Amino acid sequence: MTGSRVLILGAAGMVGRKLAERLAGAPQLAGRPVKELILHDIVAPTAPRSTVSTTCLTGNLAIEGEAERLASFRADIVFHLAAIVSGEAERDFDLGWNVNCRAMHRLLEAIRAAANRPRFIFSSSIAVFGAPFPDEIPDEFHCTPLTSYGAQKAIGELLVADFSRKGLVDGISLRLPTVCVRPGKANLAASSFFSGIIREPLNGQEAILPVSENVRHWFASPKSTVGFLVHAAGLDLDLLKGRPSVTMPGLSCTVADQIAALREIAGDKVARLIRHQPDETIDRIVRTWPQAFQARRAAELGFAAETDFRDIIHIYMKEDLGRASHAGQKSA
Amino acid sequence: MTGSRVLILGAAGMVGRKLAERLAGAPQLAGRPVKELILHDIVAPTAPRSTVSTTCLTGNLAIEGEAERLASFRADIVFHLAAIVSGEAERDFDLGWNVNCRAMHRLLEAIRAAANRPRFIFSSSIAVFGAPFPDEIPDEFHCTPLTSYGAQKAIGELLVADFSRKGLVDGISLRLPTVCVRPGKANLAASSFFSGIIREPLNGQEAILPVSENVRHWFASPKSTVGFLVHAAGLDLDLLKGRPSVTMPGLSCTVADQIAALREIAGDKVARLIRHQPDETIDRIVRTWPQAFQARRAAELGFAAETDFRDIIHIYMKEDLGRASHAGQKSA
Repeated sequence: MTGSRVLILGAAGMVGRKLAERLAGAPQLAGRPVKELILHDIVAPTAPRSTVSTTCLTGNLAIEGEAERLASFRADIVFHLAAIVSGEAERDFDLGWNVNCRAMHRLLEAIRAAANRPRFIFSSSIAVFGAPFPDEIPDEFHCTPLTSYGAQKAIGELLVADFSRKGLVDGISLRLPTVCVRPGKANLAASSFFSGIIREPLNGQEAILPVSENVRHWFASPKSTVGFLVHAAGLDLDLLKGRPSVTMPGLSCTVADQIAALREIAGDKVARLIRHQPDETIDRIVRTWPQAFQARRAAELGFAAETDFRDIIHIYMKEDLGRASHAGQKSA
Repeated sequence: MTGSRVLILGAAGMVGRKLAERLAGAPQLAGRPVKELILHDIVAPTAPRSTVSTTCLTGNLAIEGEAERLASFRADIVFHLAAIVSGEAERDFDLGWNVNCRAMHRLLEAIRAAANRPRFIFSSSIAVFGAPFPDEIPDEFHCTPLTSYGAQKAIGELLVADFSRKGLVDGISLRLPTVCVRPGKANLAASSFFSGIIREPLNGQEAILPVSENVRHWFASPKSTVGFLVHAAGLDLDLLKGRPSVTMPGLSCTVADQIAALREIAGDKVARLIRHQPDETIDRIVRTWPQAFQARRAAELGFAAETDFRDIIHIYMKEDLGRASHAGQKSA
């Protein structure tokens, strides 16, 4: 059986790195061995230890010729995880639209020109949705993004859908939940605290909680997130029936639920390292975010995530605790 | 009171021409007199008889510099009706994406650079929706277009929304129903027969009906469509609450309802000029189209359309019957 050539864009980011490690460790994807890994990012990706042939590329997807360079590899499977993250796309309007929209369109055009019709897995986001919402958002709810990042992801989905409909790529867009617990340092994303209030205390450090404990949100672990991507690579896309944007499953819980799980696992002393310091700006932003999804289609398609926040903490402790210095700082 | 400078893109199309005539005849828009009309299209627009100063421009929105030329007029109100229509965008993938997506993005960028924040009214379409549907599509239903044209219109909406959110334009997107009765000759659009089965018999000619009489669809007259655009120009956009894509009201009726209305108005002899000649391809396409919308938001915002198909026929008879030779051939 011939193996697959797999291209990961955004391979230096947290999810990209974990995906590359997963493929390097168990080099099987969509029922075929992984023959070659091509890792691309704007900063140098790290090749995981592996017997799989790995090529690391550094480059800016937004500059002339880069999409064509990537398409020329004629990968069988493309994971497009590269993006200007939400906070940055909001601050730098031109940068966000250039990378997340125009460069993505050019990438699809370059793949079309290469004419090898790869499986194309696009990491979209629940940021395509914007309040007001029903308590539980159905799969057929409209996209009314409240950030440029969300608008760009929604456009990416429409591009993937039309290029797929025309048979130019074999595409699927996964609307990823907020990934929690993110390893690494806190960053400037408004969502940073959802991971910080678990990660910092487990590392013996104080964490700031800027919102009230009754804030509810939608989570999946990095492990589940990588699982979504791997599952999407092998999925029979006829099952999507022409609607290739799928809201991924996740776990809906409140900040209070998060803290209770932390206390149960690590004890009260650790949980008391969370200090409540209300920040009205962050609170206002977070109130416009989804709290829960039905995600029925994803379940029918075999995507699965955690159902208990304690599992999410355990995954962090097993995968990342103690290797925080390796972690990136990107976050949507 | 100073008057408005109004720019119409796509001014040689059927709706653009009727809008220009309306503004020329009653030169008042958004509570202010119309001081100047600038009409633009890829074919030469016709200046309506008017006391309003009118400039006719011919040019291709997709070529370098054209968006900047248009933005340099610093119009107070921009009607963006220009598009590659659905059948053509489906046949010519590059042309559709170039004009309907990339050129629209460049137009918004050029307007942003001109920094005069005009009211920007974008003619979107019910083609942003794709089957399967509920019988009556709610305002919060997702966009899953089944044509490149529909995908491009959905992207246009997302651009208008984000540029508006950032205060770069003062934008609104109107999802127009199928316009009926279109004056002029039949064209190659799959929807052409909806107008043809009324227009041709009223002109003493035979019309082909390619689908069964139980096909149901969503209509508004050209007069109502122009009314939507004019109403949008004067609307308080704060009422949109950050969701500037609005499904316009329309009339849901079957082909049988259309024929019954024609028979009542023009008599059985005229109605018998409709010849049923099933076309499976057209039938299959039309079956994926929306049948009815709730359109509650539009009603709350004061948009109004016909509620009786007989009114739609009467509007055609009053506005267009006998002047068919003046009509264009564009159709979504």
